Formats: sequence, structure tokens, C-alpha cells
Amino acid sequence: MAKKNTKTQPAARQILDMNAFDAETSASTSSPLLQRRIANVGASAVLFYREPLEMVSASGSWMTAADGKRYLDFYNNVPSVGHTHPRVVAAVTDQISKLNINSRYLSSVVDLYLDALKATFPASLSNVVLSCSGSEANDLALRIAAATSRGTGIIVSENAYHGNTSIISDISPSALKRRKLPDHVVTVPAPSHAGQSGSIENAFAADMTRAIAELERRGHKFSAFICDSIFSSDGVYADPPGFLRKAVEIVHKAGGLYIADEVQPGFARTGEAFWGFARHGVVPDVVTMGKPMGNGFPMAGLTTRPDLLARFCEDTGYFSTFGANPVAAAAGMAVLNVIHDEQLQDNALRQGKHITARLLDLAAKDDRIAEIRGAGLFLGIELCRPGQKEQPDAELASSVINGLKDRGVLIGAAGRFGNTLKVRPPLSLTEQEADIFVDRLEEALSAIAAT
Amino acid sequence: MAKKNTKTQPAARQILDMNAFDAETSASTSSPLLQRRIANVGASAVLFYREPLEMVSASGSWMTAADGKRYLDFYNNVPSVGHTHPRVVAAVTDQISKLNINSRYLSSVVDLYLDALKATFPASLSNVVLSCSGSEANDLALRIAAATSRGTGIIVSENAYHGNTSIISDISPSALKRRKLPDHVVTVPAPSHAGQSGSIENAFAADMTRAIAELERRGHKFSAFICDSIFSSDGVYADPPGFLRKAVEIVHKAGGLYIADEVQPGFARTGEAFWGFARHGVVPDVVTMGKPMGNGFPMAGLTTRPDLLARFCEDTGYFSTFGANPVAAAAGMAVLNVIHDEQLQDNALRQGKHITARLLDLAAKDDRIAEIRGAGLFLGIELCRPGQKEQPDAELASSVINGLKDRGVLIGAAGRFGNTLKVRPPLSLTEQEADIFVDRLEEALSAIAAT
Repeated sequence: MAKKNTKTQPAARQILDMNAFDAETSASTSSPLLQRRIANVGASAVLFYREPLEMVSASGSWMTAADGKRYLDFYNNVPSVGHTHPRVVAAVTDQISKLNINSRYLSSVVDLYLDALKATFPASLSNVVLSCSGSEANDLALRIAAATSRGTGIIVSENAYHGNTSIISDISPSALKRRKLPDHVVTVPAPSHAGQSGSIENAFAADMTRAIAELERRGHKFSAFICDSIFSSDGVYADPPGFLRKAVEIVHKAGGLYIADEVQPGFARTGEAFWGFARHGVVPDVVTMGKPMGNGFPMAGLTTRPDLLARFCEDTGYFSTFGANPVAAAAGMAVLNVIHDEQLQDNALRQGKHITARLLDLAAKDDRIAEIRGAGLFLGIELCRPGQKEQPDAELASSVINGLKDRGVLIGAAGRFGNTLKVRPPLSLTEQEADIFVDRLEEALSAIAAT
Repeated sequence: MAKKNTKTQPAARQILDMNAFDAETSASTSSPLLQRRIANVGASAVLFYREPLEMVSASGSWMTAADGKRYLDFYNNVPSVGHTHPRVVAAVTDQISKLNINSRYLSSVVDLYLDALKATFPASLSNVVLSCSGSEANDLALRIAAATSRGTGIIVSENAYHGNTSIISDISPSALKRRKLPDHVVTVPAPSHAGQSGSIENAFAADMTRAIAELERRGHKFSAFICDSIFSSDGVYADPPGFLRKAVEIVHKAGGLYIADEVQPGFARTGEAFWGFARHGVVPDVVTMGKPMGNGFPMAGLTTRPDLLARFCEDTGYFSTFGANPVAAAAGMAVLNVIHDEQLQDNALRQGKHITARLLDLAAKDDRIAEIRGAGLFLGIELCRPGQKEQPDAELASSVINGLKDRGVLIGAAGRFGNTLKVRPPLSLTEQEADIFVDRLEEALSAIAAT
């Protein structure tokens, strides 16, 4: 069981800065393409690694760089059924050569997909609104909550990231740099510790009660609690399943909505369920989804109860030009079919267990591994100073990320202190690929210990 | 020259409702697919026509419905270089089968596109941020303006539509139903009349001065003026070129930014310039773009000055998962190449002139046509009561839209009173197709007159 992160440690790092290229410190080593990129996108550049990688192709779990070097992708949760999966490619190619229009015209391709998508949800969540990005989906979800609750108070986890629109940046502590969270946003710690309460579920419920009271104290009517049920950007907190239950009850009793942001844990990644919230036995009022939905085709959406959607639509017209176009629907349908036909949920569970078992063996030998957490193919490896589990070591995490890169494995980090490696390979991962990852991780950790 | 719309006319209609399917009145005639759609998307359904069309394929300027009937598409400005253009399809197919990743890795495909895109803009606008939708682009543009101006006051045109995120709905009068515009948003009339001022440019400048003063009176520091330079949702106001100049000077003197929303007029549609703002001889601080950018592939973006982007990025981290992926870049590059190689800007100008000349002939015979406005292949046909140019006739517009549908032509309407037909076919339109449109329009108008 994880303990609460001590707050006397290095200042929390911004998730967007973590492991990032820094134009100021790396300018002298810049490649021509990197210089061109910086000239093109300016201050908005967000690149991985001090020397960013130029990629040219990818297939399955592997990406190939411009210099011919191949990398095992343990970072990327967008091409979730495998890079350039032939069935998704074929579906997009077929549909985009036939018809690509907006949803003001009917197209059976779209409703075939909506029917299939809805079948994965609790029956109450029977209306779907497709959009282009998880940010757009969360933006709409917050407004559906506001229209219902007539409040603006939002509760998020301490290091949450929910997207990039204005109102969603405002509820994303990990995206803010010099800015502070607005007054109508209150945070709860990720469900990482039981404290005096006897269980993580009780502790999280108590935190929720406090957060609702804090909103009230500040004069903001409570509107919604939104969370990624695997708390990815907080450092990956998955266990025990069910820890959301009491908190969600409290949210509902206080008149708020529970919005499940499934952009990270959705689409079978946790192995134990198709959706992250389902591991906890709770039914959200709104579910948002994105990244892996089209295996890289830009698409996202939300599902909710018809009454909630109707309430919002009374006030404001909503239309997405690209949302629910038939090419997105074809991509999304191919993803659902591949997950089903290749039994990727089962594979995520199996490979996740295999990796976890091997990582626990490694942790038993290496006292810089504080904890292994997660579910299916969404794991967190918390790194600490040798033998001091309460001392997060972000420098070590950064060194491991770069050591793995040198050894042909791509991985990222998360958490308030940037010290938790995120293990998030394609769901089609083989056991052989899983072993390559753990072997390379062991090598990278050994090499760092030796220096 | 257009006169100011009288305000004693039928109440302004919501652009999203115009010509829309209405579940309550049309339920009895619903097809099974329509019933399925309503069950799937609920109150968010936005469909064209009382009996929405089911489409199955499209090519060039033509769409084919499920019953085999072909329609000439004069509405759709997303597949702007022609439906399912083979070069765009090939570019997407090729790239999506090779690599589709986020922009944290370098990819030369992306920078090839960014270089080409930037070459279409004034040199000062040298930083590009790609995103998924025009809404996201405008959402970011407003925040760039806020970070620079430290104000929140926004000026938009009376019937503007800029997108669907929370802060963008707030500045989109045409998307609001029961809601009112927030206090920090002030409108200016579309530049449709000279009034006492001697010119539309002077009248619009005077309106801008009044709007800035109104924001001040309300206690909101002025941040930005955002407009679609062809004022599409206001009813299409294009002439005379240059009418934005004095207003933009006033905006800059007052410390605000001028954001050019090029989602509608951009990418060569006006024939006279590649970008709508360029017709007016002004240089925006931020330009946003969307719809036709990828000919239907979901992509959008903005370009701005490096100093403005840097100022925003100091406060808030911005990253778009799907923005700047190589497949979007390949689609966008194909669009730029097709516009160039097929000389679509010239064609837009030529066909636009041809249609305008024919429409003016028609107007000389039919006193229900109040005015023909626009540039290139973005025209507005304002309809009025017979011989009464000041009396907008939305019912007539609706009848013409349905009459054209029966005759195999798709078209929409715009403007505060819903009485202006929007002529917006693919830029690859042939003269023969242009003639089909005008012939069918004449037939539809005759048929209505005869009843």
C-alpha cells in the first residue's frame, strides 16, 4: 500500500515539462529539423528528451527513428491497439475514399459505431456526443454539469490533467505554470493512503467531504467531481478496486455530478474492465473519452444520460464539425473490433500481471523501487532514494527514462514529483516485448547505480 | 450596397436551428436510421432538413444519398478541394499506414507542412500551433489575447459563430439559445451599411469605437476583436475590400488584439486572396483556421507572433495530443498542393464571378432577391418579400432550400434573420456545375412564386 507523498520533497514538477526538451539549454546540440520545429512552433514546443527523436515509421509496439534505430514504445497510449494497426488503417482508408462529411447528414457508419460504443457502457448512459479531442469532451462535460447543478465548483485530484481548453486548463493543476488554480477549483489528494480512516476508500471519501465543504466555504456551489479513475498524472493509483464508491456517493448526495475522464484508463487498458470506472463499481453521470478511441485518428467524445444532455442543449447549441464524421466512426469501430477479436483486454490483464511479477522481483533486489502500482497495462513504478520509500527521486526517474531511451525503450513519468515511471505499452504487447522492457529497465537501473 | 436590416422584422433565428430537423414535429415521418440517431445522440442532434438525408458516398462537388439520388453540394465548405479528393485520400492513406504519433517526437512531415502553411501568411505570424478544431484554435487565441492584454473584454459581430468550447460559445451570439451574451462580450453590427459616415469602413470603425467604450463602461478591460472577415453567419458581408482597416487600427490603439477567424473564408475560398483578412489589407495578431484545412481530416490551428505565444506559454502549458500529428500534416499538405496545382484560388474567383453575373440577371427579373454579396465562392443571396428589400423573408429562404434539395442541390442559409442563402460549393466547381445551381435556383423560385 502506498504512503502519502511527503510534501517536504522537491517541488512538484509540471507534467508538461517532465522529461522535456529545453530550447535554452539544448540549443547547441540542435539538429536542423529541431531548429526548424522551434522556429515553426515557438514557445509551444513540447518535445521529449534533451535530444528529441525524429520518428519515421511504426508498427505494433515498435517505432523506427530516422537513423534506423528501433524503439519499443512503452509510453504511447494513443495507438493503443498497436501502431498503424492494419485493420484501423484499412477502415480509415476505405471510408475516407468514400465519404467524409459532418453529422448534419445521416450515415449508417456513424450509428453502427454509436450502437457498438454504447454497448460498452451502463444502460443509463445512452446519449453520445462525439468531438475531436478529450479536451473538447471534458469542456462539454463541465458545462453539462453546470447546466444541471447550476453551480461552478469543481473538484479534481491534486495533479490532475484534463486537457487544454480554457475551462479545462483551469481544472488541470499539472498544466498550470505561473498561474494558480482558480477559486472555484478545489483539489483532493490522489487515493494513495488510508491514513487514520481504515481504508483508502474511507480516506478518499473524507477528502471529498472536505473538498465539498471548502467549495461551500468559498461560496461556490458544487457542480462536479471529475477524475481519471487510474489517477495517471498523479502517479497511477488503481487499488483497491472500489475505492471511488463512497466518494461518488458523497458527490451525488451533495448534488454534484461524477464525471469519469476515461481518456487514460478507457478502452480495455486496465485489463480488469473495459472502462476504468467499472473497476470501482460506480456509474458516472458523464464519461469522457479520447486518445485511444481511434488509435490515433483524431476523435473523442462523451456519453451521458439523455436528461442531462437535454438540459444543457436547452441553453446552448452544440455542434462539432469533425465530431461524428464517418471516417472517425470507421476508425473507432475498427478499434472496438480489434480489441474484441484480438482479446486485447485479456492480453492487457495477462501481460500486466507478467510485468508486475517481474517488476516485484526487481524491486526485491533494488531498493530504489518504492512501489509498483496499477492495473493491466497501466502501471506505475515509483522511484525513491535508495531504501527511502518516502523520498521521491525525480532525478533517478529522468536518468532511467534516458537510460531506457539509449537502450531502445520509450517511457515517461508522472506524479507530483515526477518520480513514477508510467508503463503504458500498446495492448497488443507480447510477453517477449514485456520481457525486453523489464530487462532493459534492470540494465538501466544497474548502469545508474554503477556511476 | 446593403442597407441595415430593419429590426422590426421576425425575431433573429439561431444559426444552429436554421433549416434543421425537428424531432418533435417530424417524429411521425422518421426513418429507422433517423430514430436510431436520435436515440444515440439525444438532444444534441443537429440534422439538416425536415427529412434528413442519408449519404453514402461523395466525389468532387457531388454527394450520393442512400436512395441513389445525387446532390450538388453548394453548402459544404469542409471538403473544399472536392469531396474525397484522390490526392488528399492518398496522402492520408500513405501516412496513416506509416506513422501517426503526437508532436513530442519530431517528424519531417510535420515541419514540411508548417513551412508551407507559414509561407501563406505575413512574415510576422511565424509561430503555428496545430489543434483539432476551429473551436480549440479560437479558445487558445482568446487566451493568448488575455495573456497579452490582461483584459477579458471581447468584441464580436452581432450574429457571430466562433465554435463550441465554453469560452467560445460565450462569444458566439448565434449559438446561444435561452442564454444571453456574458457581460464581457459586446457586439458590433456586421459591416453592411455606410449610414451617415460616408463609407462602410467609417461606419464599422465608429461601431468599434462605441463597442470599446461600452466594454470600458462595463468595467471590462478590452482584450480582442475577433471576426470572420466574410461575416458568414451574419449573412456574408465582403465588400468593399479594406473595410476592416480603420476598425483594426482602433482595436490596436486601444491595446486589443485583432484575431482573424479564417475558418470560413480561408484557404483561397474568396478567390481574391488566400486568406480573408488579406482582402482587407490588414495584418492580424492571431489567425485561426479549421474546416477546409485537411479537406475533412480533423485538423485546425492558429498562427501568431512568437512574442504573443511566448507570453501565453509562460503561464500555462499547452499540448494537443492529436494536433500536429503527421497524418494531419500530410492531409494539410495535400490540400495546399491541390489548391496550388489545380489553381483553385483562380477557379474560385472565376466561378464566383460567373455565378454572381448569373444571379444578378436573376435578381433583375425576380424582386424577391434583395442583394447578391460575397467574394469568390463565398456568396450570399439575400431574400426579401417581393419588391421590399428591407423585409427579410426567412420563410422564402427555407422554401428555396427545400426546393433546391428536391432538385438535387444542397445549400444553407445564414444571417440574423435566416434569409440569406450561403453559396459555398467546393473550390473545384466547374462552370457546368455553377450553371446547374443557378438553373435549379431559378426553377425553385419560380415554383414557389406559382404556388
